[in-house]
Amino acid sequence: MTRCASADSCLSDYLESKTDINTAFDRFAEQKVKCGFGKLGVCCRLCSNGPCRITPDSPKGVCGATADSIVARNFLRMVAAGSACYLHVCEATAKRLKAIGDGVSPLPIRSQQALDELSALFGIEAETTAEKARLVAEKVLADLYKPRDEKMELVEFLAPQERIDTWNKLGIFPGGAKAEVFDALVKTSTNLNTDPVDQMLHVLNLGISTGLYGLALTNLMNDVIMGEPVIRTAATGFSVADPDYVNIAVSGHSHSVFAGLIALLETDAGQAIGREAGAKGIKLVGMTCVGQDMQLRAGSSGTDIFSGQAGNNFTQEALLSTGAIDMVISEFNCTLSGIEPIAEKQNVKLICLDDVAKLSSAELQPDILGKEMELAEKLARMAATQHKQRRAIDTGVILDIPQHGFGDVVTGISEKSLVDFLGGSVQPLIDLIVSGQIKGVVGVLGCSNLAEGGHDVMTVNLTRELIKRDILVLSAGCTTGGLANVGLCSPGARDLAGPGLKAVCEALGIPPVLNFGPCLSIGRIEMVAKALAQAMHITMPELPVVISAPQWLEEQALADGAFGLAMGLTLHLAQVPPVAGSPIITKLLTEDLPGITGGRLFIESDPVKTAEQMAAIIAGKLGALGVAA
Amino acid sequence: MTRCASADSCLSDYLESKTDINTAFDRFAEQKVKCGFGKLGVCCRLCSNGPCRITPDSPKGVCGATADSIVARNFLRMVAAGSACYLHVCEATAKRLKAIGDGVSPLPIRSQQALDELSALFGIEAETTAEKARLVAEKVLADLYKPRDEKMELVEFLAPQERIDTWNKLGIFPGGAKAEVFDALVKTSTNLNTDPVDQMLHVLNLGISTGLYGLALTNLMNDVIMGEPVIRTAATGFSVADPDYVNIAVSGHSHSVFAGLIALLETDAGQAIGREAGAKGIKLVGMTCVGQDMQLRAGSSGTDIFSGQAGNNFTQEALLSTGAIDMVISEFNCTLSGIEPIAEKQNVKLICLDDVAKLSSAELQPDILGKEMELAEKLARMAATQHKQRRAIDTGVILDIPQHGFGDVVTGISEKSLVDFLGGSVQPLIDLIVSGQIKGVVGVLGCSNLAEGGHDVMTVNLTRELIKRDILVLSAGCTTGGLANVGLCSPGARDLAGPGLKAVCEALGIPPVLNFGPCLSIGRIEMVAKALAQAMHITMPELPVVISAPQWLEEQALADGAFGLAMGLTLHLAQVPPVAGSPIITKLLTEDLPGITGGRLFIESDPVKTAEQMAAIIAGKLGALGVAA
Repeated sequence: MTRCASADSCLSDYLESKTDINTAFDRFAEQKVKCGFGKLGVCCRLCSNGPCRITPDSPKGVCGATADSIVARNFLRMVAAGSACYLHVCEATAKRLKAIGDGVSPLPIRSQQALDELSALFGIEAETTAEKARLVAEKVLADLYKPRDEKMELVEFLAPQERIDTWNKLGIFPGGAKAEVFDALVKTSTNLNTDPVDQMLHVLNLGISTGLYGLALTNLMNDVIMGEPVIRTAATGFSVADPDYVNIAVSGHSHSVFAGLIALLETDAGQAIGREAGAKGIKLVGMTCVGQDMQLRAGSSGTDIFSGQAGNNFTQEALLSTGAIDMVISEFNCTLSGIEPIAEKQNVKLICLDDVAKLSSAELQPDILGKEMELAEKLARMAATQHKQRRAIDTGVILDIPQHGFGDVVTGISEKSLVDFLGGSVQPLIDLIVSGQIKGVVGVLGCSNLAEGGHDVMTVNLTRELIKRDILVLSAGCTTGGLANVGLCSPGARDLAGPGLKAVCEALGIPPVLNFGPCLSIGRIEMVAKALAQAMHITMPELPVVISAPQWLEEQALADGAFGLAMGLTLHLAQVPPVAGSPIITKLLTEDLPGITGGRLFIESDPVKTAEQMAAIIAGKLGALGVAA
Repeated sequence: MTRCASADSCLSDYLESKTDINTAFDRFAEQKVKCGFGKLGVCCRLCSNGPCRITPDSPKGVCGATADSIVARNFLRMVAAGSACYLHVCEATAKRLKAIGDGVSPLPIRSQQALDELSALFGIEAETTAEKARLVAEKVLADLYKPRDEKMELVEFLAPQERIDTWNKLGIFPGGAKAEVFDALVKTSTNLNTDPVDQMLHVLNLGISTGLYGLALTNLMNDVIMGEPVIRTAATGFSVADPDYVNIAVSGHSHSVFAGLIALLETDAGQAIGREAGAKGIKLVGMTCVGQDMQLRAGSSGTDIFSGQAGNNFTQEALLSTGAIDMVISEFNCTLSGIEPIAEKQNVKLICLDDVAKLSSAELQPDILGKEMELAEKLARMAATQHKQRRAIDTGVILDIPQHGFGDVVTGISEKSLVDFLGGSVQPLIDLIVSGQIKGVVGVLGCSNLAEGGHDVMTVNLTRELIKRDILVLSAGCTTGGLANVGLCSPGARDLAGPGLKAVCEALGIPPVLNFGPCLSIGRIEMVAKALAQAMHITMPELPVVISAPQWLEEQALADGAFGLAMGLTLHLAQVPPVAGSPIITKLLTEDLPGITGGRLFIESDPVKTAEQMAAIIAGKLGALGVAA
């Protein structure tokens, strides 16, 4: 059985040397026979008369459902789950902000400015910082908990008016976000909704709340609690793990859950816990998106105690194999179940903080509002104890940390820090596009998967093709982890860019791929897109921007994609989602959508063809704006 | 291809004569090749690395998920969807009751007594009827909308204390019901919870809110809005459709949505709409559970305008083929997509009232609170117009209504009407059990499916075996529709009962199968069980009662089952749910559960063996209580 490839040759070599562990790279090969019905979306497992599968000889399920109905149900349910995940994080963040405002939580406000801006955005007037925090959080929670027949109120502050008009016209302006998810689950149950068009409109509806609340608002609240991103240089790769320290790998997406631990570890008392265990102190190592987010913000919080981002989702099993990690704290998703046996072998303590993300072999230490510092100390002591035990002679682990990654990754880019960097507006970026020095902007976003040639293979190849064509790449999510670990987020990558983009990179000292951090920052990239459209006085569909989730993996990625399509953007995927079995849905997404939201989905798995198509789409949009391509 | 069998030979013969239509009975044969991975629950379609399937050569998914994790995720997601369906109905009902209380809706309160009792149950004191209605509804809605970390308050009024103690001990006492469903969806998404035990506890948690709110409370609120069940004799089968009338077939579970239409059709003005179309008037024909519910209540509302219950879920395609139906109003689930082409062929108008249940080819006429009478008139006029058009010479439909069903079905049985019938307490029933004249009580509940020998085959055979053994059968849901249409809910069925039960039936003038109506009445049957346990001063697990969903079909049935198991009852299923691929879950449900909630699942598809096992279980429980079996 051949192990799955990776664009990161250092990771591949390392995995090759580890003959005693079984990772996703091995299991991908073991699971290579795929069910065609599942891939096409035409398998229905909803009832006990099934499973039913659509074939030429059985064109309908037992209940009479067509391929279109079955595909629509399966797809809407996936998007609902993905949306629910992001909204769960948004709610947890709002509850923490409220607890801070209520004085229940002892956590500090890390950015008064972010809070002032958010309050101003929502028209909140309050005397005190605490009052502002409370009122902002309450507005978010109120919207999340509205019933489905009451519209969410904050949408008007977060979306361009032309989008709001479009959404109202289509009847997809969301009611209470949680209720919309709930009813999507109802809608996709047995013998309920069979209308694929209605279901796809519901997908777009969920995309709106996913993007505006799950992504954008969560970021803005995290900016208040965790500190705002500051552009700076940071390290990535396995080399960030310093074996002299107690190393806690962090995984998940509910970033603010670490505010207490960061606050503790920033103190000498916190570091002393590590020293007492014989280490130099305690550091956090980024493992999935929460690490990307810490990296993004480490210019303003956790500067000295965050080692850097080790890699993306499919590097975590290898990271644990290095022996450098003493404890993993997983607070939400993307923590692979595959780490469980490796953690057992390497004597790594597994901790979960939320029952929704409870790993079988992990210990659940619930995150309780107001008890952040108690939890932080408990976790630090557990990690220190584990470190001491692991390093004791009789249980001593073998450390095998490869030279891996880059020390000069540019990070800290957000919708605000980018504008600050550009001198206070997005106009310089528009000028570069209009002048033709850069040929457009593409967001390369989302997950990594092991399909499409292997781990990060399509992501990296597509990005190289884009920058070669003078197209600036913005990245957020596991894509960023992969791109950073092959050097594309470092300034030296300018040499891989076309002459126009290279000159820009040289002049500004930036890489051709701008690293926005975690997948939640897809919301930041959409805010950049919105700012560009507003500065150009055009609608979102007119924007010379394309987004891509070349190696989407999870249900959350589908909800992100729905956001992009609702926003009127063109979305590329290398791998077709499980909808190809439905003629109606395939046509709707790839042909009809431009006339509905202005968005469009296109599927292409060849990186050169994809880059060419993207360049042509952007050139077409520029041409329509009267800008010579 | 052989058409699927039915326990209802008249239906089978009718389908045999209809060579020009394709029904679920044909499609069940077309879909006879079943995916073994899906049946076992070990197929995971959550991410783009999949679908993954567990085999000896690939014991884990790409992410590392085991068979146990995959099965648990799939199963919890199904139960969450099922729970969501019932809670959606509960919420819609509470909103209607609140609209009545607020004076927004013009609908009358049909049972002041039911409202008084419900208010008293919840400790509500109010001056006016309207105020009582509003306060009851608000309490229900408040509980449904609580966040997950706030416990539902009405549980204490609805469940026995020993259950509440057990649930608290297990940590499954539910928080806000909608939030519990929402987080179950999160929990089952990609790379989140991998702990099968945690997921199964969440299943039980969802079972509690499904049963106490989705079932029991919905019934109690419907009693207020729609009138209480009154024991009486009614007709079932296709013969209930009178071709001289405009016939509106009703389908779904959100019963109170028909309060306006019933109120209109009870008036001469309402019937005049039918007469203007050349018919004698307008009647409602029961098609799925909402028909069962109308039949249950037709002693107190809709007495003359409800024709009767035509049959259960899998009879609806045949019902439309009779040509007798002019319009179908589907307000929630169990309306088969398979009726759509038949409706087109027969020129039957399809109407949906809720977008969650939008059929592709149906017209959506949203049910708006306060506009119930306007909607009722619109629907009546649409049905009349359709009738006139269908009966016009050039478009004339052929009527082919078989002699089918029974005219002497005993119905109207509820937790209250049964007690009234017994003289004011359940003691006479207990006395019959203790004296050994009847050997126990079994609830034969839930859906019908086409597996287990065919439509209603296991349900009917099991019921015959039970009554033969002097076990009284309580039925609710599609099981009841099937049992009624083969005569088992008619007094004459006493001749099929054992001597003890037969004598009881003769003395009381009842059939050996008590018809509680729709599947929502599973909540009523659990209330009877609770009343028995209280009168006997025993816990629920000690009760000499077994419940069975012999031919469960839908996700909702799984949520019902979770309720039974949380209540500590022994649950039988003929068909194993998709959990057999997980050793942990199989053991938990079939072996460990008695030590957890006191409930237990057993699977048996042979009706004789099932009845024997049930008799033995009940005898064992009686023996433990010191009653000779």
